[in-house]
Amino acid sequence: MLNTNTIISSLLLFIPVSIAGHFLGWEPSTIFVTSALAIIPLAAWMGTATEEIAVVLGANLGGLLNATFGNATELIIGIVALNAGLIDVVKASITGSIMSNLLLVMGLAMLLGGLRYKEQDFQPTVARLNASAMNLAVIAILVPTAVNATSIGIPPATMQNLSSAVAVVLIVVYVLTLLFSMKTHSYLYDAGVAEIEMLEELAESNLAPDSPDHKVNLPLWIGVLLACTLMVAVESELLVGTLEEATARLGLTSLFTGVILVPIIGNAAEHTTAVTVAMKNKMDLSVSVAVGSSLQIALFVAPVLVLAGFVLDKPMDLNFNPFELVAVAVSVLIANSISSDGNSNWLEGTLLLAAYTVLALAFYFHPVIEGLV
Amino acid sequence: MLNTNTIISSLLLFIPVSIAGHFLGWEPSTIFVTSALAIIPLAAWMGTATEEIAVVLGANLGGLLNATFGNATELIIGIVALNAGLIDVVKASITGSIMSNLLLVMGLAMLLGGLRYKEQDFQPTVARLNASAMNLAVIAILVPTAVNATSIGIPPATMQNLSSAVAVVLIVVYVLTLLFSMKTHSYLYDAGVAEIEMLEELAESNLAPDSPDHKVNLPLWIGVLLACTLMVAVESELLVGTLEEATARLGLTSLFTGVILVPIIGNAAEHTTAVTVAMKNKMDLSVSVAVGSSLQIALFVAPVLVLAGFVLDKPMDLNFNPFELVAVAVSVLIANSISSDGNSNWLEGTLLLAAYTVLALAFYFHPVIEGLV
Amino acid sequence: MLNTNTIISSLLLFIPVSIAGHFLGWEPSTIFVTSALAIIPLAAWMGTATEEIAVVLGANLGGLLNATFGNATELIIGIVALNAGLIDVVKASITGSIMSNLLLVMGLAMLLGGLRYKEQDFQPTVARLNASAMNLAVIAILVPTAVNATSIGIPPATMQNLSSAVAVVLIVVYVLTLLFSMKTHSYLYDAGVAEIEMLEELAESNLAPDSPDHKVNLPLWIGVLLACTLMVAVESELLVGTLEEATARLGLTSLFTGVILVPIIGNAAEHTTAVTVAMKNKMDLSVSVAVGSSLQIALFVAPVLVLAGFVLDKPMDLNFNPFELVAVAVSVLIANSISSDGNSNWLEGTLLLAAYTVLALAFYFHPVIEGLV
Repeated sequence: MLNTNTIISSLLLFIPVSIAGHFLGWEPSTIFVTSALAIIPLAAWMGTATEEIAVVLGANLGGLLNATFGNATELIIGIVALNAGLIDVVKASITGSIMSNLLLVMGLAMLLGGLRYKEQDFQPTVARLNASAMNLAVIAILVPTAVNATSIGIPPATMQNLSSAVAVVLIVVYVLTLLFSMKTHSYLYDAGVAEIEMLEELAESNLAPDSPDHKVNLPLWIGVLLACTLMVAVESELLVGTLEEATARLGLTSLFTGVILVPIIGNAAEHTTAVTVAMKNKMDLSVSVAVGSSLQIALFVAPVLVLAGFVLDKPMDLNFNPFELVAVAVSVLIANSISSDGNSNWLEGTLLLAAYTVLALAFYFHPVIEGLV
Repeated sequence: MLNTNTIISSLLLFIPVSIAGHFLGWEPSTIFVTSALAIIPLAAWMGTATEEIAVVLGANLGGLLNATFGNATELIIGIVALNAGLIDVVKASITGSIMSNLLLVMGLAMLLGGLRYKEQDFQPTVARLNASAMNLAVIAILVPTAVNATSIGIPPATMQNLSSAVAVVLIVVYVLTLLFSMKTHSYLYDAGVAEIEMLEELAESNLAPDSPDHKVNLPLWIGVLLACTLMVAVESELLVGTLEEATARLGLTSLFTGVILVPIIGNAAEHTTAVTVAMKNKMDLSVSVAVGSSLQIALFVAPVLVLAGFVLDKPMDLNFNPFELVAVAVSVLIANSISSDGNSNWLEGTLLLAAYTVLALAFYFHPVIEGLV
Repeated sequence: MLNTNTIISSLLLFIPVSIAGHFLGWEPSTIFVTSALAIIPLAAWMGTATEEIAVVLGANLGGLLNATFGNATELIIGIVALNAGLIDVVKASITGSIMSNLLLVMGLAMLLGGLRYKEQDFQPTVARLNASAMNLAVIAILVPTAVNATSIGIPPATMQNLSSAVAVVLIVVYVLTLLFSMKTHSYLYDAGVAEIEMLEELAESNLAPDSPDHKVNLPLWIGVLLACTLMVAVESELLVGTLEEATARLGLTSLFTGVILVPIIGNAAEHTTAVTVAMKNKMDLSVSVAVGSSLQIALFVAPVLVLAGFVLDKPMDLNFNPFELVAVAVSVLIANSISSDGNSNWLEGTLLLAAYTVLALAFYFHPVIEGLV
């Protein structure tokens, strides 16, 4: 029987196809699509490898590995795009990753889970804490943009300094949230048996072969992780290199591509996991995958990209297109309003999906003017 | 003894007065005021007729009738104003209806109810769900306005397409909220005997004669409904036709008239009901009238007007005056913050009324520039 | 042993120093710093005198005294600055007082309290009510600014009228919150023995000598209050008179000084109290000092300054720099999101401090343009 994992893995075929396309000088839009399809299984296998290695490393080091490699795909695509000078695409994909995790992934999980179960519960304390952390992330993205919008221009160097300082604050906060969730207040995150169940669920939902006497083959998984990381980088080069031409060909703006298409590619794995476990009524895990991934993007991936821009001499600041800012702010607003009571149903999932649809329509129709901030 | 119902019904006298005024060529401001006064009892009788017919039709069809005819007055005034090309007045009255239901109606209900009862409770789950739905409505109104404000202009046709697409999303969400509240999760809305009590309350608070062996006279009420609908349309023509001249005469801007005066006329019935039942400590019903009416305006009346504009060839989009947007957003913010704990007192009512006063003052002093968005 | 009270009181030495500096014609920046240091103990002694007198006056009059004199330092600095025509500094210090109470004071209290106790609880009903009142305060500050920003300019006289009307609404709301907390719903604020404990804590944390048979010397404390009030006014003149030159010398903008430095001086006493009691696990009192002080600034000090400007013929309106508005709005957003569940931990404190840091960085880098609103 065909299952989701088989379908995802079969997309690995697009790796040779996209590379062949590159050397044979195919149409940019063909290479764009095939490299995008190739990234989906690579991201999924990276996730599986990370989790398998994490099991061996134990709670602390394993948690840390998960926390840094959990959004490795987004990070790699971001660095490649940054290096290619596509700063606007990088910013758009940060916006879009937050939006798609909070609205599309969580919305689908709540809708499909809610069609099977009347009401689904999850830990409200953690949900509220995550809501506050997401509010901080919005503030951190809002503030540099607002400084620019409320003054008659701010010199690029000043904006860069402000953004780097804010990035450092965010990374510190990210490290402290790890300390909180893994050390000082880990009991909030594992209500008794919940943790074990969560690991079992993750193991079930991932691509690794499952057997009663499952023993992790550490060298194998390290190899898989390295190979996938390398291949994601290669495919990201193909994706980024053809992005502008391909999207122009398809009649899309690079803003729409960055906000809507790229994050769907990068988050396909989170998507599958969150929906799968929601349909098994493990809503705690489902929400934590969706919200956790958004937090990781906002508090870790985005600031690392700002600092990486500094190192690569491709300065990236946190001065977003104001409409991107609006999109992130309203995504966080409605996601917090829906998740903070620790309870979900199909209508709440629908409201999230409706918000995503409205924003996606807006990005589709948004007449981007180059250089407008 | 004079009671509220008698006072309201006595306003029916203004129907012949306003029509006579029209044919005798009275002052526009006199016709404006008399037609406004005539609409109040018509709206109340439409509400009563709708509820009486709903009782006969049973829960499902009856609920549907209520859901579509509940804000018929606003819809009729909106269509008449749209047809007269007063797009700005239509938008202003949408803004004002949401604002006045959430702040003025709910505020007065909580204040007057709270003066009699120390604390009043209502269903927090439903309140939170409504809060999330209102957030979606704000997003839907915000997004087209924000697209325009964050780009160097957007072609009117594009704005119209975006608005129509968003309108369709909202109507779908509205239909799904009905499905949720009447079918899949109706138990959340009727905690046991609550539903019966609510119907009794509504019957008591409406204008229909009340007797122990009350039997609904269906043909009568259908006649009343049709007659009132027709008369509201007639009076709306008088109101809209004299609106601009009358408000200029009274030294008011059409923005102020649309946001403050028109919604008070259209919502007089909700107003009376919400306050009456709050003073009987039926806070569940009171809040559901106020918030439900706002939701209906945002998720049903506003998008229907957008689509109606399409049909009438009087294109109306969702690109609001930014200050109207601010007003809707802050109304929803404070109403959600006050209602989401399922508990009210007189100070919370006061806070809502204070927010309404501050916004009304701002609209009074706002120097409207024609065509400014 | 040196304790906090001794350190604070020792700063009284800066009174003669700053005054001597004034007459000897010292550097403006030296006078600025010494007068700032002199204000800190004066504010603390004013607080102590107010509380001691309040004990004698009893719950009602005492509460009223506390409610009007609780932020006397900010009020005096504000009036002196207003009289000197430094309207922008007054507005900045209002912004900064709200921000520093909600983020810096509450953040430090939650962090340091949370390092000692895993979780700390406080009254959620009161926290939610305060959150709604803070939302109203944001609306009141937002609305005049938004009226200006969404129109092609508004005449100064109109802005002044709007601001005065809003100020009156806020003062009425402030009086009603006192009526609510001290009369009609006082039981929400004192859960049984809690009130007595709070008074004991306040007495312990203040500067008055403590003995078993503690008897309030009323004439003494009235003398202290008058003397401190007078000296704060004197020192405020020195502070305000040297502010512009001193901050230019230190390479700071007057916006940064007003938003960050002045509130730290004026709120040093609240700071010490809130942190001290948080570390004794009296989180109810700690949060109420921080949030209560913000509310007092927003609903009482700010509107009184608007009306005082009217009397002094130094018109001050509520049209803030848009970035100040952003800062207040996001401070209230994250503070409400963290406090409304009635529970805190060290990470929540960290999130508040991180938000403060991000905003402070933004004010540091903000390129202020004179006259830009």
